[in-house]
Amino acid sequence: MTKYKREDLVNLLPYKPAKVKEAIRLHANESPYDLPEDLKESIFDRVRKESFNYYYDPNCDELREALSGYLGIQPEKIFVGSGADEIIYDIVLAFAGPGREVIIPVPSFPSYETFSVISGAKVVRVPLLLEEDSADCCWKLDVPKIKSQFKKDAPQVMFICYPNNPTGDYFREPDVFELIKDFNGIVAVDEAYFEFGGKTFIKRLSQFPNLVIIRTFSKVFSLAGLRIGYAVADENIIEELYKVKPPYNVNLFSQIAAVEVLKHMDWVEEVKKKIIKAREELKNKLKELPGITVYPSSTNFLLCKFKVPRDLVYQKLLEKGILVRKPEGKEVENMLRFSVGTPEQNEFLAQSLEDILKEHLQ
Amino acid sequence: MTKYKREDLVNLLPYKPAKVKEAIRLHANESPYDLPEDLKESIFDRVRKESFNYYYDPNCDELREALSGYLGIQPEKIFVGSGADEIIYDIVLAFAGPGREVIIPVPSFPSYETFSVISGAKVVRVPLLLEEDSADCCWKLDVPKIKSQFKKDAPQVMFICYPNNPTGDYFREPDVFELIKDFNGIVAVDEAYFEFGGKTFIKRLSQFPNLVIIRTFSKVFSLAGLRIGYAVADENIIEELYKVKPPYNVNLFSQIAAVEVLKHMDWVEEVKKKIIKAREELKNKLKELPGITVYPSSTNFLLCKFKVPRDLVYQKLLEKGILVRKPEGKEVENMLRFSVGTPEQNEFLAQSLEDILKEHLQ
Repeated sequence: MTKYKREDLVNLLPYKPAKVKEAIRLHANESPYDLPEDLKESIFDRVRKESFNYYYDPNCDELREALSGYLGIQPEKIFVGSGADEIIYDIVLAFAGPGREVIIPVPSFPSYETFSVISGAKVVRVPLLLEEDSADCCWKLDVPKIKSQFKKDAPQVMFICYPNNPTGDYFREPDVFELIKDFNGIVAVDEAYFEFGGKTFIKRLSQFPNLVIIRTFSKVFSLAGLRIGYAVADENIIEELYKVKPPYNVNLFSQIAAVEVLKHMDWVEEVKKKIIKAREELKNKLKELPGITVYPSSTNFLLCKFKVPRDLVYQKLLEKGILVRKPEGKEVENMLRFSVGTPEQNEFLAQSLEDILKEHLQ
Repeated sequence: MTKYKREDLVNLLPYKPAKVKEAIRLHANESPYDLPEDLKESIFDRVRKESFNYYYDPNCDELREALSGYLGIQPEKIFVGSGADEIIYDIVLAFAGPGREVIIPVPSFPSYETFSVISGAKVVRVPLLLEEDSADCCWKLDVPKIKSQFKKDAPQVMFICYPNNPTGDYFREPDVFELIKDFNGIVAVDEAYFEFGGKTFIKRLSQFPNLVIIRTFSKVFSLAGLRIGYAVADENIIEELYKVKPPYNVNLFSQIAAVEVLKHMDWVEEVKKKIIKAREELKNKLKELPGITVYPSSTNFLLCKFKVPRDLVYQKLLEKGILVRKPEGKEVENMLRFSVGTPEQNEFLAQSLEDILKEHLQ
């Protein structure tokens, strides 16, 4: 069997998410708020009338129309996928692939690297700079180092997560702008957490035909279980994404659910406000604890550095039923990432951390 | 923009399915039977209690357990994907990819070739042999020619659609057996239409660790709109598929719907019987028409050769509101593929064909 495996994927590990029954899920940056009952029923009311036996709209026309209204962007510039994961896959398959290079500032969302490697592309990782006392930004893009990797004679792909996961905040806008401007390839700006911070490069699309914006329904829209993401870009980019996507990539239930949620932006707005308020409260609480550094966040999670070993904190939290994330990469070596939960979950997290730190900090 | 495109994908066309409002859909081999209302409601009853905001089970444990019961195979040997399309993608990404070869007897399901090319693999197409007067099989695998493409020193991937789409029937079992036995690589036997014919290589899994069987919920299970497919194979193959799949590939609604349908095998059995009966009736009717050859079928579709140009027949059917398939490839040049619909749809198709052929056959 070993001989059949791709030599270049031998070191790739399958994604095996932690399974803890009844745990408080603060590890995957989900919204802690489920859709209200009447919103679910409005989805069922529509889905009930659909024919499950027929393939559903491969182009997601109704959803792209609805997104067009939400974004103020023509539907032709919008591409819908089965989660932002599929969008990332489609981007690397369409524009990276065998023999090409993908530039990734790290640490960032691990799928950029995994999917690039699978596509046969070469990954160029450029570590972020950490300036803890900086006034405007802690985690900076190393612009000169990234630009030194640019190749004028070969098209590349670059991912920029904005705001960045797992570090939590935006990179400096002029830095991102400079990178997009000078790059000979496709720049994917992943705005999965856009709604929690409000900054976007979407307005730059007309200026940069090589720019593609990634968004998702898995965060503030609270539809992680349904897998809906989308890309916004020039039609020339969108056309290439259509070439590599599985024909019927988004199922009928998810298409309809996303359309229905977009009709309830008042509820989405409320979720957003609650999460941002809870994030600020959690940040302030954690900052008062001993032996912890809390980084700025424009997302629905907080990255924290510990003076005690993170594995200990992780394990002790798990024993209390709280599942959190150990982000990958030596830049975030003794750090943990906490999704912002409900006020009650956050209170329990803060109290648990206080107990753990008091006990183990000497 | 052109410079950013992958040179090896320039000739790839996006899949743009025909869109005809209110058409009778006989082009995509779907089941013509939607789920009964009470079955849909039992799905809603379960989904209603789920949290849409959280990522759902990435391993599809409950569905794999249910499939284990249906198949009599351990759940560890089952892998679930977002439609058979994703399964095919995952197989080529895990085992083909840059620099490897994929052998495909053609004509067959076009995604094998498309996804292989996208993965960076080289496609080796071996045309089927057509022996119209053969007692046991019309469309034969060219076993010597396929075997002449086998490489002992480099792992390859081979797809065998069984029964084959678009030709409609099984290849000779000893031929498939010989190919699997002598192949230095992964053989994917696509049994998407298994339930309409009943023959399977699943019982050969213990004998061949390089064999992977592809199945789907899009045909007799009548869930095309929900995107659920699965693979059955040795754990060593399954493990590689986990490496390349997007972490949360199958959404919660589809997982639950598939589980619920598997609890209603009496209904599935009834759908199967109705479609097989309708297929035989349609076949007998079409065989009596002038200027048409109907090939044997163990699926829910029929491949037919015409004495008048197929584009004419296609267009005239479209004008009557019937959408059918023009299969790709010079082996099937003047042929059309018809999904088996309801008895009423089939009657309308047969009558329409009779009118068209009588008018245009001179």
